[in-house]
Amino acid sequence: MAQVQLYDTTLRDGAQREGISFSVVDKLHIARKLDELGVHFIEGGWPGSNPKDIDFFHRAQKLALANAKLVAFGSTRRPRAKASADTNLLALAEAGVGVVTIVGKSSEVQVVRVLETTPDENLNMISDSIRYLKARGLAVFFDAEHFFDGFKDNPAYALRTLEVAAQAGADYLVLCDTNGGMLPAEVVAAVEAARKMTAVPLGIHAHNDSEVAVANTLAAVQAGATQVQGTINGYGERCGNANLCSIIPALKLKLGIDCITDAQLARLTEVAHYVSEVANLVPDPFLPYVGSSAFSHKAGLHVSAMSKWGESYQHIDPTRVGNQPKVIVSELSGRKNILHKINEMGLSQSLKTEEVQRLVEQVKLRESRGFQYEGAEASFELLVHRSQPSYEPPFELVDFMVVVEKRRRPSLRKSLEEMLSEAVVKVRVGSEVMHTAAEGNGPVNALDRALRKALLQSYPDLARVRLVDYKVRILEANVGTEAQIRVFIESTDGTQEWRTVGSSTNIIEASWIALADSLEYWLLKQKAQG
Amino acid sequence: MAQVQLYDTTLRDGAQREGISFSVVDKLHIARKLDELGVHFIEGGWPGSNPKDIDFFHRAQKLALANAKLVAFGSTRRPRAKASADTNLLALAEAGVGVVTIVGKSSEVQVVRVLETTPDENLNMISDSIRYLKARGLAVFFDAEHFFDGFKDNPAYALRTLEVAAQAGADYLVLCDTNGGMLPAEVVAAVEAARKMTAVPLGIHAHNDSEVAVANTLAAVQAGATQVQGTINGYGERCGNANLCSIIPALKLKLGIDCITDAQLARLTEVAHYVSEVANLVPDPFLPYVGSSAFSHKAGLHVSAMSKWGESYQHIDPTRVGNQPKVIVSELSGRKNILHKINEMGLSQSLKTEEVQRLVEQVKLRESRGFQYEGAEASFELLVHRSQPSYEPPFELVDFMVVVEKRRRPSLRKSLEEMLSEAVVKVRVGSEVMHTAAEGNGPVNALDRALRKALLQSYPDLARVRLVDYKVRILEANVGTEAQIRVFIESTDGTQEWRTVGSSTNIIEASWIALADSLEYWLLKQKAQG
Repeated sequence: MAQVQLYDTTLRDGAQREGISFSVVDKLHIARKLDELGVHFIEGGWPGSNPKDIDFFHRAQKLALANAKLVAFGSTRRPRAKASADTNLLALAEAGVGVVTIVGKSSEVQVVRVLETTPDENLNMISDSIRYLKARGLAVFFDAEHFFDGFKDNPAYALRTLEVAAQAGADYLVLCDTNGGMLPAEVVAAVEAARKMTAVPLGIHAHNDSEVAVANTLAAVQAGATQVQGTINGYGERCGNANLCSIIPALKLKLGIDCITDAQLARLTEVAHYVSEVANLVPDPFLPYVGSSAFSHKAGLHVSAMSKWGESYQHIDPTRVGNQPKVIVSELSGRKNILHKINEMGLSQSLKTEEVQRLVEQVKLRESRGFQYEGAEASFELLVHRSQPSYEPPFELVDFMVVVEKRRRPSLRKSLEEMLSEAVVKVRVGSEVMHTAAEGNGPVNALDRALRKALLQSYPDLARVRLVDYKVRILEANVGTEAQIRVFIESTDGTQEWRTVGSSTNIIEASWIALADSLEYWLLKQKAQG
Repeated sequence: MAQVQLYDTTLRDGAQREGISFSVVDKLHIARKLDELGVHFIEGGWPGSNPKDIDFFHRAQKLALANAKLVAFGSTRRPRAKASADTNLLALAEAGVGVVTIVGKSSEVQVVRVLETTPDENLNMISDSIRYLKARGLAVFFDAEHFFDGFKDNPAYALRTLEVAAQAGADYLVLCDTNGGMLPAEVVAAVEAARKMTAVPLGIHAHNDSEVAVANTLAAVQAGATQVQGTINGYGERCGNANLCSIIPALKLKLGIDCITDAQLARLTEVAHYVSEVANLVPDPFLPYVGSSAFSHKAGLHVSAMSKWGESYQHIDPTRVGNQPKVIVSELSGRKNILHKINEMGLSQSLKTEEVQRLVEQVKLRESRGFQYEGAEASFELLVHRSQPSYEPPFELVDFMVVVEKRRRPSLRKSLEEMLSEAVVKVRVGSEVMHTAAEGNGPVNALDRALRKALLQSYPDLARVRLVDYKVRILEANVGTEAQIRVFIESTDGTQEWRTVGSSTNIIEASWIALADSLEYWLLKQKAQG
């Protein structure tokens, strides 16, 4: 099958997702990462629509991308105006890129009702705009907006917009399912009709409103499209854009289309997580290929099959996309999974049958109290260690007090600074009791600082450990602020990362448990190593 | 096109999703809701695998379902054993249902490597098990596990398992993409081959590991399958099962297959949210059809098109699935969306242009400090009201103090009860200052109680208001416990629900802001009504 170009629009269409707001620096970081992944085009933004995007294209010129070309996005000229006087087209021409994408309407009803102009004037707008940009020496991709619903409604007009764009010199005709309403069979029929009409190569731009954006994209490729537009993690407005993280491995591993190298594909999971981090979104664990649960196994049946034959419940080898299989500790699976986990930890030799049984009961009891060891392996390991009579904890929590105060005193500025958070902690290390206090910008931060302060005297190396993520989950949502609260903490020492869990009706106590686990786990690992 | 049966397996396969653990009561609630939605079959569980499921089937007999038949799930007999001596089959026969589904392997390599028996013995297992259950007077659906990868590897054997099941009397042959690795074209080819081989009706059971489970399901239906297995919200192991919430509207609204009534379809969003609530999972806002963002509009371009022609960016009318369009207040969209929102509130008349401008700046400033009005309409409305000089707030927060303490005193029990959380608040109502205190099971709960206590003296009706959800989101995840914290609160007075937001580096302060907004909003609405 023909080569396929990957066109990423995370920075433009992806940023339309609710909750995403990229800074210029965020966009530069993501562009570099996308280049490393090996995509062919990176749509950076819409310079005609906002000054932030002009700034992005200005600063992006220093990126020195190895694989990808930067693309600026804009729309066709306004109705009854001159292309040469259109500030939006001018901004495109001056974005400092070699490739631009312009969007124009391919649906007659959209032209009349939304654009409020005539079908002919729309054709002129497409033609003029492309000619203007071609004359400026640019490669031009034409995004045929509402192509598929337009084709359904008036196929002749939809095809005519493509023809006009082709005649004006467009280098690619990208067929857009703008409202995400198409099913694969309709996509195939429309792509085939376009294929017959023009020799200009075709692209596909799908949205996920019918939960078939990936299938529509693959169907279009199988019908002859050679450019695929999508976003990392499928981010995008409403239900999202076609997800490149699912499309790329399908193209490469299932359809035999070598769009990126094996080494690049092996970075897919990393890139997906990186983009979600920059977007400040928790990575979706259930995403195909790249999600942390994409290759997880929880049911006893599957785990037992997995231990016989690794590939039995996996459609691909997860390492090919940089992911890994995972066996989950959970109440549903019981004994068998916990044993598997203990094996992975290399502790199966030292635990007696009764000890394992006690451990299974411990896990069940604690899960019923809101702890969850799925995703908090460090806390689970501590549970295993603590179940052994010979275990000596590196420190022991005695007690703590946290005070949070907001006072309107005339002597204080009236702002957020008038908040005070202070923690007092008492910790036992060996025979010594450390009693200390610290302030923080919130109660958990104060507790964190006070606890570290107390322990640093005995364990100065702990200074290397820091928290990288702190998540709060409210359980039993329908009881409001009286609910059980689960806290997950992710920590790092610069080389390794680990996760711990705490649970309580009291968020401070839940945090305290997870914090203490985090530090205890690291001290334990250090002791084991040296 | 032929009628299609909907087979829901949320209670069995859906419960395999990480983080889901249904109680028997949860399952009974969901079964009733699924029945109201109009699905034809509800797979309730695996009575042979755990006592909770036996209990479920026992209690489910009193459900008096109007539309759906309950189905019990189990596996074929063990290798080299008698069907009549198989406790798993016995449990199926005694589950008190009229329909059972049994799973057997259709992949030769799976039989040899995982089942560790011969291909012939596997055929006997399928045949014996179905004959045993048919002899007990049951309708039997055969789940052909690993059918599609089995068909790819050894088509003759995969088809032979179906043939054997058909000869033994199976009423349905359900083709399973167990590892979720298939693409639609492969599904079509295999379904067509099965179609040629047998007259027994075919079903499809897909998993979403390639992000094409919905497309695979629809492709199978178009190739002749007449039973669709899936789960609400696509819950399921790894990346989930085929999502009935996307399949049902596609069948009914796009393929013209009347599988449920219009009135039932209009409850789809409600059912989807209900199941996620019972599963204690936050409803995914980005889910097609049923997500709260599925018909949202944020970009200025789209919003302006929407105001000209409602359907322009919607693939279906959202009310058909019980959802609604939503315009989002967000920094990306700016002025236009905020105006739209103010219009919706009916406040456009009373605001001057400069006031709107100030409001837009307010929203931007506060969003940059971590507030987010997407999903916190009540806080946004308060912002609008507060921007008007004539606005008089029903109360004013003066200050507060929260103390959280954990002490190991010999006189106290060593348990969670040794935690103490106490809040002191000062609130001004008119010219009076209320100063009071309360304890709670956590700091936010204590604050909530103290604040209500202070206000109830002036506003006794506030007793009707209670919190139904309290969510915490950590922003800027990479700075650990120093991060900005956003709190969302959902409240109800028994008839209406509203959402408020607070943000701070201090979780107590963020909660305090959202709590106060919640009560102020309700008092404001009360005043407006009477």
